[in-house]
Amino acid sequence: MKQVYIYDTTLRDGSQGENISFSSEEMIKIAKRLDQAGIHYIEGGWPGSNARDARFFELARNEHFKHARITAFGATRKPHTPVEADLNLKAIIDSQAPTAAIVGKSWPLHVEQIMGNTREENLAMIHESVAHLKAHGREVIYDAEHFFDGYQDDAAYALETLDAAARRGADFLTLCDTNGGTMPFDIEAIVAQVRQYLTDKGFTSRLGIHTHNDCGLAVANSIAGIRSGAIMVQGTINGYGERCGNADLITIIPLLTLKMGIPSIPNDKLVTLKHLSRFISETANIVPLNSRPFVGRSAFAHKGGLHVNAIMKQPRAYEHMDPALVGNKRRVLVSDLGGRSNVMYKAKELGVELGDDYDSSEKIAAEIKAMENKGYQFDVADGSMKILLQKFTEQFTPLFELETFRVTIEKDKNQPCRAHATIKIKVDDADEITAAEGSGPVSALDNALRKALDKFYPDLASMHLVDFKVRVIDGCGGTGAKVRVFIESRDNEDIWSTIGVSEDIIEASWQALADSFQFKLAKPS
Amino acid sequence: MKQVYIYDTTLRDGSQGENISFSSEEMIKIAKRLDQAGIHYIEGGWPGSNARDARFFELARNEHFKHARITAFGATRKPHTPVEADLNLKAIIDSQAPTAAIVGKSWPLHVEQIMGNTREENLAMIHESVAHLKAHGREVIYDAEHFFDGYQDDAAYALETLDAAARRGADFLTLCDTNGGTMPFDIEAIVAQVRQYLTDKGFTSRLGIHTHNDCGLAVANSIAGIRSGAIMVQGTINGYGERCGNADLITIIPLLTLKMGIPSIPNDKLVTLKHLSRFISETANIVPLNSRPFVGRSAFAHKGGLHVNAIMKQPRAYEHMDPALVGNKRRVLVSDLGGRSNVMYKAKELGVELGDDYDSSEKIAAEIKAMENKGYQFDVADGSMKILLQKFTEQFTPLFELETFRVTIEKDKNQPCRAHATIKIKVDDADEITAAEGSGPVSALDNALRKALDKFYPDLASMHLVDFKVRVIDGCGGTGAKVRVFIESRDNEDIWSTIGVSEDIIEASWQALADSFQFKLAKPS
Repeated sequence: MKQVYIYDTTLRDGSQGENISFSSEEMIKIAKRLDQAGIHYIEGGWPGSNARDARFFELARNEHFKHARITAFGATRKPHTPVEADLNLKAIIDSQAPTAAIVGKSWPLHVEQIMGNTREENLAMIHESVAHLKAHGREVIYDAEHFFDGYQDDAAYALETLDAAARRGADFLTLCDTNGGTMPFDIEAIVAQVRQYLTDKGFTSRLGIHTHNDCGLAVANSIAGIRSGAIMVQGTINGYGERCGNADLITIIPLLTLKMGIPSIPNDKLVTLKHLSRFISETANIVPLNSRPFVGRSAFAHKGGLHVNAIMKQPRAYEHMDPALVGNKRRVLVSDLGGRSNVMYKAKELGVELGDDYDSSEKIAAEIKAMENKGYQFDVADGSMKILLQKFTEQFTPLFELETFRVTIEKDKNQPCRAHATIKIKVDDADEITAAEGSGPVSALDNALRKALDKFYPDLASMHLVDFKVRVIDGCGGTGAKVRVFIESRDNEDIWSTIGVSEDIIEASWQALADSFQFKLAKPS
Repeated sequence: MKQVYIYDTTLRDGSQGENISFSSEEMIKIAKRLDQAGIHYIEGGWPGSNARDARFFELARNEHFKHARITAFGATRKPHTPVEADLNLKAIIDSQAPTAAIVGKSWPLHVEQIMGNTREENLAMIHESVAHLKAHGREVIYDAEHFFDGYQDDAAYALETLDAAARRGADFLTLCDTNGGTMPFDIEAIVAQVRQYLTDKGFTSRLGIHTHNDCGLAVANSIAGIRSGAIMVQGTINGYGERCGNADLITIIPLLTLKMGIPSIPNDKLVTLKHLSRFISETANIVPLNSRPFVGRSAFAHKGGLHVNAIMKQPRAYEHMDPALVGNKRRVLVSDLGGRSNVMYKAKELGVELGDDYDSSEKIAAEIKAMENKGYQFDVADGSMKILLQKFTEQFTPLFELETFRVTIEKDKNQPCRAHATIKIKVDDADEITAAEGSGPVSALDNALRKALDKFYPDLASMHLVDFKVRVIDGCGGTGAKVRVFIESRDNEDIWSTIGVSEDIIEASWQALADSFQFKLAKPS
């Protein structure tokens, strides 16, 4: 099948997402990562709309991109303004980006009711803007905003707007489901009709598809558009974007390559997708979605039991593809469904040598089961599981030991609480005692422990706690109920989870916190 | 178009998700909420596999379900075992659930390589198990596991397995994309072929579709199955489930009703979907996904500017549907539209008199909104909401006041933590100072507060804390992140929920705890 071009708009449409914003420098870093992944087009932003985007294009001019064409975004000229005088088009040209993407209106509702414009002037805005950019030697992508809504309301006019762009030489016409409300079967039918129209008219402009996820169908809609002849797909990494997000390129690319046999990015770049996904979520400071297709932490996670034996025998029986193809890996969640074979498998995965002794691995499985009955859940706490297996097999070398801690929280009337912690730890034969405040007892303890460890291990700064969950295990115990604390931590390379269980939330938090630090300190750096 | 039956498997397949587990009591609460939403089938679990699920069916027998049929899940009988002797089928029958769902193998790879079974014995397992359950008067849903993989490998055998179930009277045949790797166009084609096969054979069994989200296509695949003739869709609330999750019913239901004109749950229940989604994420203790289609907090969020004016003029220009249809609302991220009418409605519901003063209710709405921006969630904390409304309108009479508390937690080496609290409160003009231990800081504080209050209010013994949840609001803050504590309390008559938000877990717990006691003490007894 024909090559499909991947058009990334993480830097523009992606940063419309709530809580997402990138600096110009971050934008450049992201663009370089996208280029390394073999993405074909990188929409760098709207140089006519803000200084940050304009600065991005300045910086981008000094960078070499191996695969990607940097694309400047903007709109068709303003109504009743000569193209030469339009500042927004001028900014696109000044950006020196080789490709220009301009958005125009397809839907009479927008043209007339929202913009107070006429249909004719809208057509003129489109064809003059395209012609102007072509005259300046740009590759031109015309984005037909609200195309599917427009087509369903008034197909003839929607086609006229495309005609205006195509006849002035637009290289691509991108059909946008801007509000995200169109169904895949409608997308498929409409793209096919548009393609037929362009063929009949003898136009050479190629089709692109741009979808949003308001109906949970952005990926399906992209695929539907491609099946009907679109050869460019616009989306964002991790599907970031406003409302429910854009089409997720991290899902679409493997679907094209692995499920549909359609070439897009070079095949050998597929393995970089997991890291790309993680890099963008780190830069955007958004917790990665564990259930994200292909690249999520849980995407190839299996609960134990018979299942595990089956996967060893025949991965295809329980996995739709080899996780390594996208840089991900299989995870076996050890839970109370399993026994000895799960534990052996898990130990292997975590790199802990259990030895061949049947009895001892049987005993370990029994101990884990007993702890799970007390409320531990090792299927979600690989970090603690690894440490526990090392402890059982006497391979655990604690990189610090607790002597004692004391946490105090005080409150006066309506004043906020104040928390502080003192801690004494031992590393090798050296003691360290220190104290810290925190915004709560766990934070005070975390700060005190970090401060104490800092003397011995100065590279802890890269480690962050990204999630912290507390669950009452038996609700009827009230505030004295047993609680499970789950902590997820990360550094620049990895994410690991640890767990603690106790009737005391501080004890449980300490267990999870201590395991998390032990795990980090034991990592090869 | 024909009615589509909604089959919820949150309690079984949903709880296969990493980090998700429900107690039997939580399962009952969830089932009741699903029933209230008009869901047709609720799969309660696998009574033959564990005590918790068996207990659910016991509890369910004493509940009245208005819309839903409770369904017990299990597998076809074991190989070479008489159906009467199969413990798993026996457990299904003993559960007394009116509907039974049994899963069987469709794919020779599984039958032969994984199970080491023969094709013939597999067919016998299917038809005998179905016949056995029908003989016991059950409605039978036959789940064809790995159906699409099986069909693509060996269509004739896959159809034979369905035939085995259909000819013994299975009411539904559910085609499962168990590994989640099938594409929507293949689902659409295969379901159509199966339907034709059943029609040609004169079978009356109806078709269901069960998909997983490994390709980000679970919703699209469900829709594709329905378009080809499936009239039952199996999924979970919020798409929770193992790996990348199951098909999200919270997305599928509005698509059927609003986009495809296909009746499923009663139309007037659509507005409950947002709350249902939120309730399940609260119970599962999973942060709700802001970008979730239809019901997410960002699903109808618009950045300010021109956009907002356009929405006011013509919502359809920027929204694919009216958010109120699913109980959600538009959010304008810059200029707030306020929530005065919501506040008035809520005050009336909670029995707090706000008066007719427009300005003051406007002000209250703004204050609540500001608190919600800080992380309070009053939709799940009626107790705190009531106290807050009383405070705003100067109708709140505190039944005790805090002077001061101090909580200390100490730990020595590997000894468990010890926690104690001292507290001083004032009731009317009398002071009381006391101290208590506890199994953790919140428990110590709870015990000390109870002990202090006991002198003034001896009837507190009937009050219990039944649930206690902690959630990190902004993950990136690590242990210093803001947390939300949610407490559910009950006495013999009522259940009420309270909330606290702070960067200090003890402060947040105190807020929720103090509100809970104030609420209890203010209740007419």
